[in-house]
Amino acid sequence: MRNFRITVSYDGSRYQGWQRIGNGQSIQGKIEAVLSEMTGHKVEIHGAGRTDAGVHARAQVAHFKINTDRTPDDIRAYLNRYLPEDIAVTACETVDDRFHARLNATGKRYVYRIWNSDTPNVFERKYLCRMEQKLDTVQMQHAADLLIGTHDFKAFCGNKKMKKSTVRTLHTARVERLGDEVRLTFEGTGFLQNMVRILAGTLVEVGQGKRNAQEMTAILDSLDRASAGITMPPHGLILDEVYYDATGKEGKTV
Amino acid sequence: MRNFRITVSYDGSRYQGWQRIGNGQSIQGKIEAVLSEMTGHKVEIHGAGRTDAGVHARAQVAHFKINTDRTPDDIRAYLNRYLPEDIAVTACETVDDRFHARLNATGKRYVYRIWNSDTPNVFERKYLCRMEQKLDTVQMQHAADLLIGTHDFKAFCGNKKMKKSTVRTLHTARVERLGDEVRLTFEGTGFLQNMVRILAGTLVEVGQGKRNAQEMTAILDSLDRASAGITMPPHGLILDEVYYDATGKEGKTV
Repeated sequence: MRNFRITVSYDGSRYQGWQRIGNGQSIQGKIEAVLSEMTGHKVEIHGAGRTDAGVHARAQVAHFKINTDRTPDDIRAYLNRYLPEDIAVTACETVDDRFHARLNATGKRYVYRIWNSDTPNVFERKYLCRMEQKLDTVQMQHAADLLIGTHDFKAFCGNKKMKKSTVRTLHTARVERLGDEVRLTFEGTGFLQNMVRILAGTLVEVGQGKRNAQEMTAILDSLDRASAGITMPPHGLILDEVYYDATGKEGKTV
Repeated sequence: MRNFRITVSYDGSRYQGWQRIGNGQSIQGKIEAVLSEMTGHKVEIHGAGRTDAGVHARAQVAHFKINTDRTPDDIRAYLNRYLPEDIAVTACETVDDRFHARLNATGKRYVYRIWNSDTPNVFERKYLCRMEQKLDTVQMQHAADLLIGTHDFKAFCGNKKMKKSTVRTLHTARVERLGDEVRLTFEGTGFLQNMVRILAGTLVEVGQGKRNAQEMTAILDSLDRASAGITMPPHGLILDEVYYDATGKEGKTV
C-alpha cells in the first residue's frame, strides 16, 4: 500500500460539506467514488478537517492508501478528468506511510469574504457574503486583535454539546479592506465547529457599530455562545490552507 | 420623459444573450421587466451592443426614457433589488435627451480569458475557457500585433450573410500571461459578429504552434472566414467596457 497526499480545491455551494454522511453529496464522497472506480476497490480518504455545507476550500488536504502502479501525476490527472467541475485536485504526491492529513496538521488558515457594497458582485456572488452597510474595519481590527493568543473559545463554538477542550490558539486575525471587499483572515492551531463564522459574525457586529471592540475580552471570558455574534452564512467562508510542520514536510516524499 | 444611462454587469451563463428575442431569457428582457414593473408601463432599453448567449459583461451600457420622479440612485437600488443575482446595475445617471448608448459609443473593450493549466480553476470556471496545452504567448502577441489598425475583418466575421462594411479599427490586441491565465484584450471602434471569439481562436492556434504568427496578414487579406481559426466558446468572453467620446461625456449629466 502506498500513501498519497492530495490538495483539493472546491466550490462547496452544492455539497452537504466535505464529509460523506448518508447518501448526500459530499466532496469526500465524490473523490472516494472516483478513486474506487480507478482502483477497482473501495477507497477511503481522510481530510485535514471537515468543512460545513456550502463552505469552500482553496487547499484542503487529504490522504489515502491504495495499491497502484500509477504515478502521483497520473492519479491527479485521473481525478481531474472524472471529478465534477466544482472539485479539482491541485496537487498529488506520495508521502511517508505515517502521514495523516488530520493528525499531522499543525494549523489552518480560513478566509471569510464580505462584499461590502450596495452594488452586487455578480461574478463572485457565490464566494462572498454581501452586506450593504459600510463596515468600520478599523474597529473590527481592534476587536480582532483581542482574539489573538491562546484562549478558551467556548463562546465561539457552535456545538453546545461540545465535551472536549475548547481551548485553541489563534495566531492571526486580520481585517482588510480590498476595494469593496472586506476580507477576514484567521490562522490558528485548530478551529471549533462554526468558530470562524461566529468570529466573523461578532466582528461584523463591531463593524456595524452594534458592539464595541473592547467587548471581545468579555465575550471570551463569558464562555457563553449567546454573548457572541451571529453565525455568518457559509458561502463567504473558504478553507485557504492547511499547515504541516517541518517533520510533516520532511516526510512528504518517499 | 427623462433619459437614463445605466451600466450593467452580468454573468451571461444562463441567458440567450443581451438581446430580447421571443420568450427566451435575455438580460435586456430582465431589465425591461423590472423597469416596466417600476413605472407601470412598458419600457424599452437600448444597449451599446448585443452580447451572444453565454457571454458576460463587466460594464455594458444602456439607455432608456421614462417618466419618473425617482432619482438615478433610487432607480439603481430598485433594479438591484428586483433583478436576478446574475445581473447588477453598477451605475445609473440622467443624461442628455440625445444620448444613445449604441449610436454614441465610440469603441469597446473585450477580454477573452483562458485558463491555461492542467489543473481546473473551480472558482472562476464559468468565466474562463480551459486549455491544458501550454500556449506560446510570445508568438500570440506577434500575431496580435499584425491585427492592429484599420482592416477589412471579413475573415473574422461569423455572419456569412453580412452585407454591410466589415472594415473596423482595432486599437489594442494584447496577450498577457497572468499566472495560469492567458488574457486577451481587444479594443476597437466596433466588432463584427463573433469577431473577438474568432480572433481569440486564431491567436490560440498560433499559441498551440498550429499556425505561424505571420499568417495573420494573409488571413486578413483572404477575406475568407474559412482561413481563420475556430470560434472560441462564449463563456471566456466578457464585454469589459464601452467608450464614449468627450461629447458623450459632456452630455452625461443634465
